[in-house]
Amino acid sequence: MERISVIGTGLIGASVGLALRAAGFNGEIVGWNRSTEGLETAFAMGAVNRKAETREDAMALCEQSQIIFLATPVLAILDWMQQLAPRLKPGQLVTDGGSTKLEISELAKKLYNQKDTARFLPGHPMAGKESGGAALAEAELFRNAVWLFTPCDEETTPLETEWRAWVAKFGSRVMDLEAARHDELCAWVSHLPQMLSTALAAVLEDSFADTQELRAIGGRALRETTRLGASPYSMWRDIAASNAEPIAKTLSALEQRLAHIRENLRTPELREEFEKANRFRSTGPETPAAGKHGEVK
Amino acid sequence: MERISVIGTGLIGASVGLALRAAGFNGEIVGWNRSTEGLETAFAMGAVNRKAETREDAMALCEQSQIIFLATPVLAILDWMQQLAPRLKPGQLVTDGGSTKLEISELAKKLYNQKDTARFLPGHPMAGKESGGAALAEAELFRNAVWLFTPCDEETTPLETEWRAWVAKFGSRVMDLEAARHDELCAWVSHLPQMLSTALAAVLEDSFADTQELRAIGGRALRETTRLGASPYSMWRDIAASNAEPIAKTLSALEQRLAHIRENLRTPELREEFEKANRFRSTGPETPAAGKHGEVK
Repeated sequence: MERISVIGTGLIGASVGLALRAAGFNGEIVGWNRSTEGLETAFAMGAVNRKAETREDAMALCEQSQIIFLATPVLAILDWMQQLAPRLKPGQLVTDGGSTKLEISELAKKLYNQKDTARFLPGHPMAGKESGGAALAEAELFRNAVWLFTPCDEETTPLETEWRAWVAKFGSRVMDLEAARHDELCAWVSHLPQMLSTALAAVLEDSFADTQELRAIGGRALRETTRLGASPYSMWRDIAASNAEPIAKTLSALEQRLAHIRENLRTPELREEFEKANRFRSTGPETPAAGKHGEVK
Repeated sequence: MERISVIGTGLIGASVGLALRAAGFNGEIVGWNRSTEGLETAFAMGAVNRKAETREDAMALCEQSQIIFLATPVLAILDWMQQLAPRLKPGQLVTDGGSTKLEISELAKKLYNQKDTARFLPGHPMAGKESGGAALAEAELFRNAVWLFTPCDEETTPLETEWRAWVAKFGSRVMDLEAARHDELCAWVSHLPQMLSTALAAVLEDSFADTQELRAIGGRALRETTRLGASPYSMWRDIAASNAEPIAKTLSALEQRLAHIRENLRTPELREEFEKANRFRSTGPETPAAGKHGEVK
């Protein structure tokens, strides 16, 4: 790989640029970002060393890149996939960092990975922060994080192998999953915690916005369970839209469980629920001791 | 105060003993605990310097104490209140650290605070850990924590003033609340986060007990939202039973909010929920930067 184009130089895209440099990549890193400010920040910090001036310029530079890394929100990734497919050739690799994978994988099967097209390897680094933006980017963002791939087929090309090797050099643990399974598991471990934290913070805002007492009394339990409530809609709109069914299933399951607990606050059935929860927290391997940021999502 | 009896030398009771010593109290601290082991631990660490041998011995020593601190779970506090009331006299003060206050306050109004009875001042230190027991006790447990009182009447006695002064010396911020309001607010900031964490961990245990993938992928979001799932039923049974209605109300409200989000994963209504949650996290004074343990509950 001599040139990589990073489409979307936000937190993930800019961190990939920094991580590539830290891992010894000395080719060209082209960046494009919808907001000029984000691109300037990424350029100033050395995450990219060439700026695409326009969307068309970015497309043209993608044509001259071995690898194209799509790091926008999911719906924009789908759009870029469609724009790029007819302009790319066999021997090029497109990969991404989108938070949901089924829609991306389905589209990739249609537009890529044919005899006369570029390859597409869907990916998802399980790293992030509550806020986005290039200003928060770090070369170490992916260290100790899991980087998931949901390959579209059995085939693998030398560029795919090279990209996986770079990801390993970022310090990530690489893991392959089937796309639908990815979306189901991420609904449970990431999207459901987000929605319940948003729900809890929203209902507290409705009931207690002006109540100093609530905040004076609240401690770590309140702080932790509402922390993700700070996440902006802009980061979650596409995830919710592109993974609606799996997320809805997890929400239904949690609603039912909460209702069950509500109906059994005075019965021994409550013990069952606590004991199940205790087992979840105590059995099996603990959530890995993730690095500084590899754990934020 | 020359002698205080601590009934229940678990985490809270033993920490009160240690905090009293650290604050300069040099009178006698009598301890009683249902399990001998817990009492021996509290004695060995200097949290109490006299052990009641039997329940009857403990009662007799309470008769000779100026202050009696009840630090058992709520239902046992109610039991001790009834056992002690006929044996105590005006000029003695009973206070407690129970997690719910309405039932305790109602009983206190019946059995205490009369012309010919002892006084009762209901209290609740907002400090704790996921696990209990004397072995985890610390003199600093209450530093920077809020210590709530729900006084039964307008009157205050010199012993009550003295107890409040000791609590202030422990490093706690003292705050008075009406008992029903206490239980309502604690349902929101403490009991609801516990129940939702238990519910989430329990539903994950049902669905993914044997799935290594889930734990491999899960990061901070999963870890934080299920952390309280480790809390044992024994610590929560009495809270759930004695505060069932307020907790049920918070659960209903959260269930409805989750359903609302579930029905709006693809609509702009989701933005409203995120923005409300953002406001809750960003407006008003942030949850106070609590001390090492004053924040755990």
